[in-house]
Amino acid sequence: MKILVLGGDGYLGWPTALHLSALGHHITVVDNLVRREYDAEMGVDSVVPIALLDERVKKWKEVSGRRIDVRIGNLTDAAFTYGVVAECKPDAIVHFGEQRSAPYSMIDREHAVYTQVNNVVGTLNLMYAIAETNPGIHLVKLGTMGEYGYPDIDIEEGFIEITHKASTDVLPYPKQPGSFYHLSKAHDSANIMFACRVWGLRSTDLNQGIVYGQSTIETDLDPVLATRFDYDGVFGTVLNRFCVQAVMGRPLTVYGAGGQTRGMLHIRDTVACVTLALENPAEQGEFRVFNQFTESFSVRDMAEMVKKASTKPVQIAQGLANPRVEREEHYFHAANTKLLDLGLEPHLLNSGVIAGMLDLVERYRDRVDPEAIAPTVQWRSSASTLKTGNTSSDASFLEV
Amino acid sequence: MKILVLGGDGYLGWPTALHLSALGHHITVVDNLVRREYDAEMGVDSVVPIALLDERVKKWKEVSGRRIDVRIGNLTDAAFTYGVVAECKPDAIVHFGEQRSAPYSMIDREHAVYTQVNNVVGTLNLMYAIAETNPGIHLVKLGTMGEYGYPDIDIEEGFIEITHKASTDVLPYPKQPGSFYHLSKAHDSANIMFACRVWGLRSTDLNQGIVYGQSTIETDLDPVLATRFDYDGVFGTVLNRFCVQAVMGRPLTVYGAGGQTRGMLHIRDTVACVTLALENPAEQGEFRVFNQFTESFSVRDMAEMVKKASTKPVQIAQGLANPRVEREEHYFHAANTKLLDLGLEPHLLNSGVIAGMLDLVERYRDRVDPEAIAPTVQWRSSASTLKTGNTSSDASFLEV
Repeated sequence: MKILVLGGDGYLGWPTALHLSALGHHITVVDNLVRREYDAEMGVDSVVPIALLDERVKKWKEVSGRRIDVRIGNLTDAAFTYGVVAECKPDAIVHFGEQRSAPYSMIDREHAVYTQVNNVVGTLNLMYAIAETNPGIHLVKLGTMGEYGYPDIDIEEGFIEITHKASTDVLPYPKQPGSFYHLSKAHDSANIMFACRVWGLRSTDLNQGIVYGQSTIETDLDPVLATRFDYDGVFGTVLNRFCVQAVMGRPLTVYGAGGQTRGMLHIRDTVACVTLALENPAEQGEFRVFNQFTESFSVRDMAEMVKKASTKPVQIAQGLANPRVEREEHYFHAANTKLLDLGLEPHLLNSGVIAGMLDLVERYRDRVDPEAIAPTVQWRSSASTLKTGNTSSDASFLEV
Repeated sequence: MKILVLGGDGYLGWPTALHLSALGHHITVVDNLVRREYDAEMGVDSVVPIALLDERVKKWKEVSGRRIDVRIGNLTDAAFTYGVVAECKPDAIVHFGEQRSAPYSMIDREHAVYTQVNNVVGTLNLMYAIAETNPGIHLVKLGTMGEYGYPDIDIEEGFIEITHKASTDVLPYPKQPGSFYHLSKAHDSANIMFACRVWGLRSTDLNQGIVYGQSTIETDLDPVLATRFDYDGVFGTVLNRFCVQAVMGRPLTVYGAGGQTRGMLHIRDTVACVTLALENPAEQGEFRVFNQFTESFSVRDMAEMVKKASTKPVQIAQGLANPRVEREEHYFHAANTKLLDLGLEPHLLNSGVIAGMLDLVERYRDRVDPEAIAPTVQWRSSASTLKTGNTSSDASFLEV
């Protein structure tokens, strides 16, 4: 298949591009390289050093003999997006090309607006480009389990049968997203579902849990092929952060009661799930939703697992002030059978996996800035005190 | 109260501003006058001539002795929005300031993107301005019944209790919006609900049905105070359009099976409902939803009512090709008790009301362009052949 991987320079986009290329697909990575700019803005960097996209692609050619094409541009630029779709003539498009950090979207007004416009307009442009170029293109869109929020009923995969008074219908699962980022993903999902209905597009919405790990079969082939490992307060995710704290001899920071429970998956399952979705495409006109996670853990559970896996003594700091507004002890039971039914064989989380992550961080411990771990963005405040390199995020817009 | 009426130069914003001013509130109309630009873009005009905003406000001072302040600017300009909120220090904000036509949003990519960015970013800026200026400001936001779509179960007011497997929760009512415009309203609702939860804002979301009529107590005081009456294929709503067709001796055009059933309300009930919401504000931190309509009719019902009310012979053209993708015969039972419980006394639709609308159109029949009534925007096509004055909506962006 000819496949565009949008956001193919990012944490998950790059390993996905490699994996699909290894399987023999013709891959074009599309990226505006903005993820690297966010690092500069935040003054942080991946624990694992990552090569430039050109170097990555060149190394992959050396290692595998396979070519990955690259197009640099912004999906919010319609001419660019139409052009890439028209020229590359893909059979499928995997769409990772969005701002994906909840704290980043909550920094202040500019970052909230940026996140929603970037994500929603990029996806609108893509939908129109598909509709006007080839409606047969299968759009595999990354969403998030966080779109659902944390209701007191079981979370289903995208849709739920509701019996109300005397009648019954199957309706989109109610969404309670927990940040402007998560909201942008819910907006996207609603827009795509509509496009499938009125234009007959075909799309798979992958509502992904929190990904951990950094090693895939392909990224392990050479250090130049490595993908990111983020631990900072804005882009770092919980398990990666705990591993960094353990290695640095700092207490693992559990915000709030620690009962926050999340669907999780290994990075190898991300690339496997995307592949399964591509190999088993949605029908023409179909909008389907897969919940993409393999296990669920509470934040407290994860801290305990890291403590257990570490060869060094680890302290857990419980009950710290929670920067987010969220439920800290809650019901969580979410369906995730659709990808298993397609043949997913999960890589489960165990001490060996965590030990591997700890080893990785140990190797690059000189690159860790412990000050970058603390949460700097507060959900309760509409304007963060985070100092960023983004001059448009100072308060000058208030001086009218 | 000090009240900002955003979109206060529009079809409903202007009568609402007048009504609230008549009640003794201190009103500032905020508008970017873009509704008048859409007319120019579409090459159409209100059947009833409307005065410039300055003339309207001056006439209102003459007639009532009351002052309405005016601020011209765009809500997507954060500096403007923060400035208006900071300087006017409102107790409440009524937000009509959005692009409100479903067909307009479906013209092509540019109009879809414009609609979603204009509506979502304007509202985001407003939420941030409220949060950072005075979170006590009550935001009364106009939504639409079309956010719900047409499910096979009863539509509730914003939230629904769902029992699923062994547990029960009250969740946001599932949305199935039917255009990029309706989607923008659903996005807004989700964003505002979130802001109420994390920042403790207070908001009432008025999910309004289709409004008919043009006469309120205040607009009737002088022709210069008149509000719009749209009949064209893009901005005209169904009952107004049928009245124009009846007066012009043209068949009433029923698209599809005609069983499309919609919540409806008289323009006098719009101003009454907004007033009730303002006088009975949401609690701090509360996001509440009122369904704002008084009766429901199918398109077929409405055609028959116009035919019956007309003194001239009227033909009904049934089963015309439907420009929209929608259910044409469907279940429709929607709750609307919350505004009634607050004291709304509905103006119901009857032959007398329709006769008044027919008389109004008769008076201005020379202003009607019958060619403007036909639907020009097709839901099934991502790019309309509609010729507009907007040069950015030609297909030049495809030539990359």
